[in-house]
Amino acid sequence: MPRPTDAEFFDLGDLPLQSGGTLRGARLAYRTYGTLAEDRSNVIVHPTWFSAWHDANEWSIGPGLACDPDRYFVVVPNQLNNGLSSSPSTTPPPFDGPHFPLVTFHDQVEAQHRLLTGKWGIETVELVLGSSMGAGQTYQWAVSHPEMVRRAAPIVGSSRTSEHNQVFIKSLRAALTLDPAFRGGEYAPDARPTAGLRAFARIYAGWGLSQAFYWGREYRGMGFSSLEDFLVGFWEGFWLDPDRDPNNLLAMLWTWEHGDVGRTPGFDGDTEAALRSIRCPVVAMPARTDLYFPPEDEQWAAQFIPQGEVRVIDTTWGHFGGLGLNPADNAFVDANLKELLARPV
Amino acid sequence: MPRPTDAEFFDLGDLPLQSGGTLRGARLAYRTYGTLAEDRSNVIVHPTWFSAWHDANEWSIGPGLACDPDRYFVVVPNQLNNGLSSSPSTTPPPFDGPHFPLVTFHDQVEAQHRLLTGKWGIETVELVLGSSMGAGQTYQWAVSHPEMVRRAAPIVGSSRTSEHNQVFIKSLRAALTLDPAFRGGEYAPDARPTAGLRAFARIYAGWGLSQAFYWGREYRGMGFSSLEDFLVGFWEGFWLDPDRDPNNLLAMLWTWEHGDVGRTPGFDGDTEAALRSIRCPVVAMPARTDLYFPPEDEQWAAQFIPQGEVRVIDTTWGHFGGLGLNPADNAFVDANLKELLARPV
Repeated sequence: MPRPTDAEFFDLGDLPLQSGGTLRGARLAYRTYGTLAEDRSNVIVHPTWFSAWHDANEWSIGPGLACDPDRYFVVVPNQLNNGLSSSPSTTPPPFDGPHFPLVTFHDQVEAQHRLLTGKWGIETVELVLGSSMGAGQTYQWAVSHPEMVRRAAPIVGSSRTSEHNQVFIKSLRAALTLDPAFRGGEYAPDARPTAGLRAFARIYAGWGLSQAFYWGREYRGMGFSSLEDFLVGFWEGFWLDPDRDPNNLLAMLWTWEHGDVGRTPGFDGDTEAALRSIRCPVVAMPARTDLYFPPEDEQWAAQFIPQGEVRVIDTTWGHFGGLGLNPADNAFVDANLKELLARPV
Repeated sequence: MPRPTDAEFFDLGDLPLQSGGTLRGARLAYRTYGTLAEDRSNVIVHPTWFSAWHDANEWSIGPGLACDPDRYFVVVPNQLNNGLSSSPSTTPPPFDGPHFPLVTFHDQVEAQHRLLTGKWGIETVELVLGSSMGAGQTYQWAVSHPEMVRRAAPIVGSSRTSEHNQVFIKSLRAALTLDPAFRGGEYAPDARPTAGLRAFARIYAGWGLSQAFYWGREYRGMGFSSLEDFLVGFWEGFWLDPDRDPNNLLAMLWTWEHGDVGRTPGFDGDTEAALRSIRCPVVAMPARTDLYFPPEDEQWAAQFIPQGEVRVIDTTWGHFGGLGLNPADNAFVDANLKELLARPV
């Protein structure tokens, strides 16, 4: 799946960042589905996951689904650093590549808030949902803008990236940056660190799906004939996609690694206080076999959220259970989103 | 923990390998604990895990423990490729380093069988036990020499390395060999691929222990003050140990990756038939939170072993739950070993 070409762009102007840096002349890429109601009361926000573009969320958007464009105005903002929104790869010197400033989930949501309020004058959002890093942004929306968010559904993600999850991220970074072609991020466009990306892919392959997925060789249902065929054909192919720029990946990994709603201004690192401040119902959907966002992390968070609950996706697809690849899992997620949307709040 | 200096050595002569190669003038390093009975009826064999030397098994050997040297003659053979037994690092050209032939679990057990029969004339073994790759060797003993093995206790390992486990192994290999200093295995002794070993360590850190271990920051009980302190101080330190040679590690990884009792001569790849051929009681002890040798793999195997059963170590220490680091887990393992040893067979 190459990078989609149907994005629209919103000029963010200069965006101050939590890290102290500034994104100058920043742009947010987005796509919308459906029509904004005159009273702007039908908005859904659905941020993107690690390395994904807006089209990766389209499995959850369509007539008859919870995110029904006949009823809702679904905004999918591409996260900063994904290569469509302002990113290391899209920025001219001197802030290009490895010199791009660090971006937090808080910064991501501030950019999206500018889009919603600046472009459309939106004041309330019926639902924020997102998978994986999209879940991190979902939590961030609920903490940063409790006055706007009426419901939240973080899927296979968390409100604070656990230390175990951080170890996974650090291992990805260590492998990718080990490739001498990486050159501290100063690789030439035609001399990308492909060996590093292949190692990155092999690490990811162990984490993204579960023990049971591999035991059942479920990759055969995806059109792959052996483990090696799957590792090269799917995993290496995915990360070698020339539209997935290594500096962009590393920038997003940093955001992910430092995910913590407690770092929202005003909470001084107190994650529990940040979770307690959430006003809307939150239905978290971790996957039973997710190796880096296990259900336990979400159960921990839910105990602090006044209207927090956890509904576990009972799947062997691991983390991918929440990314729209497995029809049974998609149906479970969609049914829960519909129930949440039907609730008066 | 540097490599121990108290090994004894047994000359294996020329050892033909399943891969078609030959280990010429091979040596097996071992240590024994206790005294061999005159009728040679008190033998326990306890092979080593990945990268470990014989001393890593000493947590399970001692007066009052199941492996009581006052009663048993405990033989700990160092697996080939661990740097004490014949290994890439101990072999002169032309079979040195990356040119060392491939070794299977079957080959490992044939070498150990030569030691037991050739040095002591041993005909029966009361118990074979081992953790991780030691469990792979335990299963192999039970399949290769059912006439000798009276009881078997594979701990946090398996009879056939699962595909998911293989992905983990492949990711380790991809990272280590990515370091330009690796030079296809032709690195100089004073120019080892240390960056590759550090990436290797970070990958391993995510797998070796569980989500719950990191969530609880249980590394603090091991003397580490932060995640990074643990990653560098424990994990990188462990793999940077100059006695852990990269070519040796890769050679052992190959053995591990290709673990499958179905590859024992005579079974033609039929793992289930190999498991059905085991005559002795087998008490498998996987750890509940083990990420790469999950209990499900052992439950699968146990259904084919006539006297097979699974007793799960209920621990948050993941794979390490079976390596002797956590006293509560050690007590569980030891109690089960005692019960197994007490059984008339």
